Amino acid sequence: MPEPAGADDGLLVRITPRGADRAPRAAEGKRAAIARAATELFLAQGYQATSTEQVASTAGVSKQTVYNQFGDKERLFREIVLGVTATAEAFADALAGSMDDLDSPAGLDAALRALARRYLTTVVSPQVLALRRLVISEATRFPDLAAAYYERGPARVLAALGDLFADLVGRGLLRVGDPTRAASDFAFLLLGRVLDEGMFRVAGPVPTPAEIEASADHAVEVFLGR
Amino acid sequence: MPEPAGADDGLLVRITPRGADRAPRAAEGKRAAIARAATELFLAQGYQATSTEQVASTAGVSKQTVYNQFGDKERLFREIVLGVTATAEAFADALAGSMDDLDSPAGLDAALRALARRYLTTVVSPQVLALRRLVISEATRFPDLAAAYYERGPARVLAALGDLFADLVGRGLLRVGDPTRAASDFAFLLLGRVLDEGMFRVAGPVPTPAEIEASADHAVEVFLGR
Repeated sequence: MPEPAGADDGLLVRITPRGADRAPRAAEGKRAAIARAATELFLAQGYQATSTEQVASTAGVSKQTVYNQFGDKERLFREIVLGVTATAEAFADALAGSMDDLDSPAGLDAALRALARRYLTTVVSPQVLALRRLVISEATRFPDLAAAYYERGPARVLAALGDLFADLVGRGLLRVGDPTRAASDFAFLLLGRVLDEGMFRVAGPVPTPAEIEASADHAVEVFLGR
Repeated sequence: MPEPAGADDGLLVRITPRGADRAPRAAEGKRAAIARAATELFLAQGYQATSTEQVASTAGVSKQTVYNQFGDKERLFREIVLGVTATAEAFADALAGSMDDLDSPAGLDAALRALARRYLTTVVSPQVLALRRLVISEATRFPDLAAAYYERGPARVLAALGDLFADLVGRGLLRVGDPTRAASDFAFLLLGRVLDEGMFRVAGPVPTPAEIEASADHAVEVFLGR
């Protein structure tokens, strides 16, 4: 049976149905159910081991409905992978105005710590790590898709962070030579090790809030040269 | 035909033949040829799409020889993946004594820049990136192998770097609160972005020596708080 409309697991947010304005409500429910089933199966088994039949059966729809909604397995995979970059998009959008209220350098430290905690929390989720592993797994088969994922996901957030830093520099609140490079420094001081280790340790422990806080604070201290 | 003994492509260094003391010279040549063929095929096609028959045929040996030398496909894969961590091992060993001659803080900057260039050069090689991608691809199927790769490869180098920093702190040449954490900061300031981007951009450009130098210098400057 189709999942109730609006239900999602945090990964499927904003997989925009093509031609949604023309599609009846029931088709949207089926589409969401297919997307959810495909995401689960691709993440658990990989691309090759997952069949369109399995996706249809898990979603409780016919194989023909999967084809009607998404096309073949490759198209379904591409849409799933690029659909989930909406999380990165939302995060990048939220970054842009997140320090508009900051009016003195004294508040920068706290604002960066808060940003670092949100950033790290988003990235270390087991679902995000599993999706990254899946995309990397298929990077040799679908190099354009892997590059597009990187562009719309991690690179978009880095670019938004660079814009934020440039704005802070312009307002005299942050002193760095090159805001784009500083954004990369900040991001990888914060995320580098957990992202890297997270690719290889499949069932590694999820950091606790206290660990996230400590890592975020440390990255900000190093970044600000304290 | 077996490759000439001693030939290797930089990835196959020190895949130690089990029971090599008893094996005749010809077996060692065959073993190296099988290891090389398997490495090429696994990197190009992945684990699932590579058969023992293909490995045997590419190496110019019989399938039985592959079984005799390595066992089944899974054992061959495990041995290949863990064999290549010898590069990391050699790098980690070289780190240990690399700053023994340093006798004043003034020389630290140059010594760290040189270390950073070597470290970055090693990691951004297309072969290293391809191998990382391969191990990550199979991390869900073989979680223990991916974890062992991480432990013997990246984590071993980080640990050696932490030991080096602790030694420098003890000799009054470096001031950091926590050498282990500082090693991680240094490594991901230097490698974080290229490692991450390198997983998704399969045919991305290899950094030029000038780009490596600039990235290495920048990481050292941020690390030392300049």
